[in-house]
Amino acid sequence: MTGTRQPGTGNGLARFSINQMTVKQLPLPELAAACAELGVGGVGLWREPVQEYGVEKASRLFADAGLTVTSLCRGGFFTAADHDAMLADNRAAIDEAAALRTDTLVLVSGGLPEGGQDLIEARARIGGALAELAPYAAERGVRLAIEPLHPMYAADRCAVSTLGQALELAAPFPAEVVGVVVDTYHLWWDERVEQQIADAGAAGRIHCFQLADWVTPLPEGVLTGRGQLGDGCIDMARFRRVVDAAGYTGPIEVEIFNEGMWARDGFEILRETTERFRATAP
Amino acid sequence: MTGTRQPGTGNGLARFSINQMTVKQLPLPELAAACAELGVGGVGLWREPVQEYGVEKASRLFADAGLTVTSLCRGGFFTAADHDAMLADNRAAIDEAAALRTDTLVLVSGGLPEGGQDLIEARARIGGALAELAPYAAERGVRLAIEPLHPMYAADRCAVSTLGQALELAAPFPAEVVGVVVDTYHLWWDERVEQQIADAGAAGRIHCFQLADWVTPLPEGVLTGRGQLGDGCIDMARFRRVVDAAGYTGPIEVEIFNEGMWARDGFEILRETTERFRATAP
Repeated sequence: MTGTRQPGTGNGLARFSINQMTVKQLPLPELAAACAELGVGGVGLWREPVQEYGVEKASRLFADAGLTVTSLCRGGFFTAADHDAMLADNRAAIDEAAALRTDTLVLVSGGLPEGGQDLIEARARIGGALAELAPYAAERGVRLAIEPLHPMYAADRCAVSTLGQALELAAPFPAEVVGVVVDTYHLWWDERVEQQIADAGAAGRIHCFQLADWVTPLPEGVLTGRGQLGDGCIDMARFRRVVDAAGYTGPIEVEIFNEGMWARDGFEILRETTERFRATAP
Repeated sequence: MTGTRQPGTGNGLARFSINQMTVKQLPLPELAAACAELGVGGVGLWREPVQEYGVEKASRLFADAGLTVTSLCRGGFFTAADHDAMLADNRAAIDEAAALRTDTLVLVSGGLPEGGQDLIEARARIGGALAELAPYAAERGVRLAIEPLHPMYAADRCAVSTLGQALELAAPFPAEVVGVVVDTYHLWWDERVEQQIADAGAAGRIHCFQLADWVTPLPEGVLTGRGQLGDGCIDMARFRRVVDAAGYTGPIEVEIFNEGMWARDGFEILRETTERFRATAP
């Protein structure tokens, strides 16, 4: 340990942001302190732990620590049966994002509606919900970021499986209101992704860039099997080069859901993650 | 039970074939007897249980029962480190297919090579192996059928994730030598699949058509979580219509890997599967 460092100055972490799910064992104050200690300048937050701590209190905590909240996860689940409750919850998520002074709300759009079989129709419903929510988000200065999830989640979590589909859904809206998330874990398999990242960058729609590695075997439920950077088969440096070349200059979040990492010491995981992140430099 | 019926005549099972993995609890003679009892005319076989029983003996068993062997699973794993052993094993698989009098060997092509990160390079290696094996298969009257597997298997089982990629790999070879497998479980999420099925049919390259449903949550390892027809979210009738419209008139195999189904009585599962199959009629 070399004591407190200036976030992101000459430490290879200038664009690094830690998504709090990567170190969910750290309570918010410990997360803020660990970031200060390790020279980390950005955090991606999740609604549930923030609500538990208090939204305003969390906003002050990270502001006082000099940390930028790079995104809030998550809105979405637009295909839910109770449409009004879904809209109300998404408006609350937008309000929380504004209160946390982050410009980006990440959206997990929802899978097939109950009993549904038609992904195209599900995506149409997602587009309809975006149209209902975009003005509310625009008024509050919050960008909606559609996250394509891996096709293995298409049925039950997100009918948006490719960056191309996310861009199509974003297209009717101004780029500063609706954009996309580029997450290596969800997109690495797709031969079209490099072109689509270029398209997203040209359109000014890359609102969030997240890293996690692909490791096998996948665990039951396939939610908590993401790999630490470098432990899997994704060429992170190449992804970073492609996203850089698309003109994206924003933060790069590391968001890993992994039971093994959650079982270890949170500070140690954050330190390891900063080292792994440096090794992904293009 | 209504006693022995003529396979596939007026019973809604004219094109039905049971892949033996669906009822892997049935030893081969019981499988043949159950098929005769239920009016099932086709079986898809797997190498390991056939080798255990004896290839020639299995060939006679199914021929004597009047059953058509609609495919043999599987060749492939072309990206393996030991290239010569891989080729020898695939030639053995082709020989076994010929001995079983099936015209189709299903290929699971293999994922990234050890330490690899490049799916495009992996697919190039798969194409190279096909070139080495195609003449051997052609001489023996066995068609090689490239099966695209769901993208969740791209790293460790099959770098061929879409029907489009499979068709590209097949393109350099005569259609009667190298074609593709259309499996609902692997392809249902892909918005391009209907056009690609039409393309595959027009090229005469649909060599195998398999059904399994998509159910969640996925189990650990994601290999044995396929659903019985009708239990999941795949529109089977629509898939059948699209494959019919592409000009495919061959057998339709039901291939389900499901621990719950394997734990039940095999004959009962076969009977249930014939009923579920009938309900998928377009």
